[in-house]
Amino acid sequence: MYRIGIDLGGTNIVAAVTDEKLNIVESVFAPTRAYRPFEEVIADMCTLAESALALSGINKSDCSGIGVGSPGNCDSEMGIVRRAYNLGWKDVPLCELISARMGLMTTLANDADAAAYGEMKTGAAKGKKNVLFTALGTGVGVGVITDGKIYSGAGRGGVEAGHTVIMMGGEKCTCGRRGCWEAYASATALIRQAKQAAAEHPSSKLASLEEISGRTVFELADAGDAVAKEVVDKYVIYIAEGLANLINIFDPEAVVIGGGIGDRGEKLLVPIREFLADNCFGGRERIQPEILSSVNRANAGVIGAAALV
Amino acid sequence: MYRIGIDLGGTNIVAAVTDEKLNIVESVFAPTRAYRPFEEVIADMCTLAESALALSGINKSDCSGIGVGSPGNCDSEMGIVRRAYNLGWKDVPLCELISARMGLMTTLANDADAAAYGEMKTGAAKGKKNVLFTALGTGVGVGVITDGKIYSGAGRGGVEAGHTVIMMGGEKCTCGRRGCWEAYASATALIRQAKQAAAEHPSSKLASLEEISGRTVFELADAGDAVAKEVVDKYVIYIAEGLANLINIFDPEAVVIGGGIGDRGEKLLVPIREFLADNCFGGRERIQPEILSSVNRANAGVIGAAALV
Repeated sequence: MYRIGIDLGGTNIVAAVTDEKLNIVESVFAPTRAYRPFEEVIADMCTLAESALALSGINKSDCSGIGVGSPGNCDSEMGIVRRAYNLGWKDVPLCELISARMGLMTTLANDADAAAYGEMKTGAAKGKKNVLFTALGTGVGVGVITDGKIYSGAGRGGVEAGHTVIMMGGEKCTCGRRGCWEAYASATALIRQAKQAAAEHPSSKLASLEEISGRTVFELADAGDAVAKEVVDKYVIYIAEGLANLINIFDPEAVVIGGGIGDRGEKLLVPIREFLADNCFGGRERIQPEILSSVNRANAGVIGAAALV
Repeated sequence: MYRIGIDLGGTNIVAAVTDEKLNIVESVFAPTRAYRPFEEVIADMCTLAESALALSGINKSDCSGIGVGSPGNCDSEMGIVRRAYNLGWKDVPLCELISARMGLMTTLANDADAAAYGEMKTGAAKGKKNVLFTALGTGVGVGVITDGKIYSGAGRGGVEAGHTVIMMGGEKCTCGRRGCWEAYASATALIRQAKQAAAEHPSSKLASLEEISGRTVFELADAGDAVAKEVVDKYVIYIAEGLANLINIFDPEAVVIGGGIGDRGEKLLVPIREFLADNCFGGRERIQPEILSSVNRANAGVIGAAALV
C-alpha cells in the first residue's frame, strides 16, 4: 500500500505520496496562506494530496491512509489541532474534515513529532527506539520518540521544549516568556545575534553583508571572519545547552538535528558533540547519544507525516 | 501481602514494612555512612528491613517483595545502580545482593521516580496517570510518571531534570555545569541565596540569624522582613521557572512538590501557580496541571519504594 503524507507549515503545505518504505513517489506544495479560514486551508491540503496522487498515477484506493504533521498542540487521539499559533487555529477537527473529503483514515501529530518518527522509521535514527529530533528553523521544534512511539506526555500537548528557559530574564520569546531556548537557538535567533554583532562592529565584513541570513553568517564564519565566527561559536553553544538539557531529561540513543540549520552537517555537529560530552550529566563517563543530522532534511516533515499512517 | 520499602539516601537509609495499601506498619532508619564499601551499606539495608519486619511481627513470607529507591542513575531492568555520585557507587548490582540475602524479589528505581510513583499510588496525585514529582532538598530530584508508569527515557538513566540549565553561565552546579535548576531551586541554593543577601544587608534581621536555614529564612519572610521576603520571592521564581520548563515538556496532569521545601505547602504553591499560569506554553488558555504538595512528605521515598513491589 502507498501512503499520503501532508506537512502543514506556517508558510507552505507539502503533500506527498510515498511507497510503503516511505520513499517519496511524488510531492507537491503550495503556500499555506494561513490568514484564511481553516476550512479553506484544509481544502487546499486535500487538493494537494489529490494532485500528488494524480501526478504519481496512484489510486486513492491503493493508499492505506493519510498522515498529517501540523504545527502546535495536536491531540492525536481526537485528531484535533488544539492550538497552533502560527496558523491562528484553535480546536480545529482536522482529521474529521480531511477524512470526510478524502475517504481515507487520517492520522495527526505535531510536525516535530512526525519528523522525529520519520527519522526513526527511515532516516538518521533508523533502528533506534529512543530518539530526540529537533528542527532548528524559524522556531525550535522538538519531537521525542520513546520505545518506538511518539512521546506526548498526558497526550494533551506534547513536548514544547523550544519553550524551556535556558536564560532566565533573557531574550523575549514569541510564547511570551523570556529566555526560551527557541529565542537563542532558532535560525531567527542566529540572524538577530548576527545583526547585533554587525551593529557592534560596523566596519566588519558581517556589517557589510547585503543580507544577513543563517547561510551568509555561516559562510562568512567558514571563510575565517572573526566576528562571524564568534557569532556562530556562541550560537552553537546555545543549541548545545538546550540539547544537554533534553539529553539529561530524555536520555535518548540518538539526537537528530533538522531544520535549515541541521543542513550544516558535521561543521555543526562536531562542536556540539564536544560540548555535550563535557556537559551532559555523567560527563564523558555516560553513554553518549549519537548526534546526527537529519537524513530526510527538507522532507523530514512530509516523510514523518506519511510514517504516521 | 505486605511489602518492604527501602529508601537509600546519601545521609540515611529508611526501611519500612507496609500493608498492601502502602500504609507504613513499621519503619526504621540508620545513617548510610556512604564512605564504606557498597557491600556494607547493602548489608545494613537488609538488616534494617529485617528490623522493621521483627518490630512489626510480620513474617518475610507474608511479603510480596522489596522495593528500593536509590539516588542516581538506576537501571531498573537489570537491578543495577549505574552511577550514584553521593554514594560513590558505580554499577552496583543492588537487587541481586539484596535478593540473595533476603530471599525476596527486589525492584529498584531512582528515588525521585519511586517517590513520584508513590504519590500517584497513594498520595497527592492519587488517581492521576501523568504526574511530575520534584523533591526540593539538598538537591533537586525529579520523577515523571507517564500513563501510570515511571518514565525513564531509553531506560539507561532517567530524568535528571535538576541538571537542566535555566541560567546559562550561572551558578556552578555539583554536576560540573553552570546554571542548573538544582543550583537555584534546591534548599542548598536557598541557603546560599540567603547568605548572600545577608552579606549585602549586614544590618538586616537575616544577617543577625544564628543559623541560616530554609526554615529560618521562611520564618523571617513570613514575619514580614523585607530582605528575607525578597530572597524567598526570588527563590520561588527559580522553582517556578524550572517547573514551567518541565510542564512545557511533559504536560502532566499534576505536579507534586516534595522534599523539605514542599512542606511549606500553600504559601509556596500559591505564587508558583500564579507564575505557571502566566508562563507555561499556552498561558492561561491551556489546561493547567494541578500544583500540589507531597502528601507522603518525609515518607515519600520509602512509600514510593514499597509501591514498586
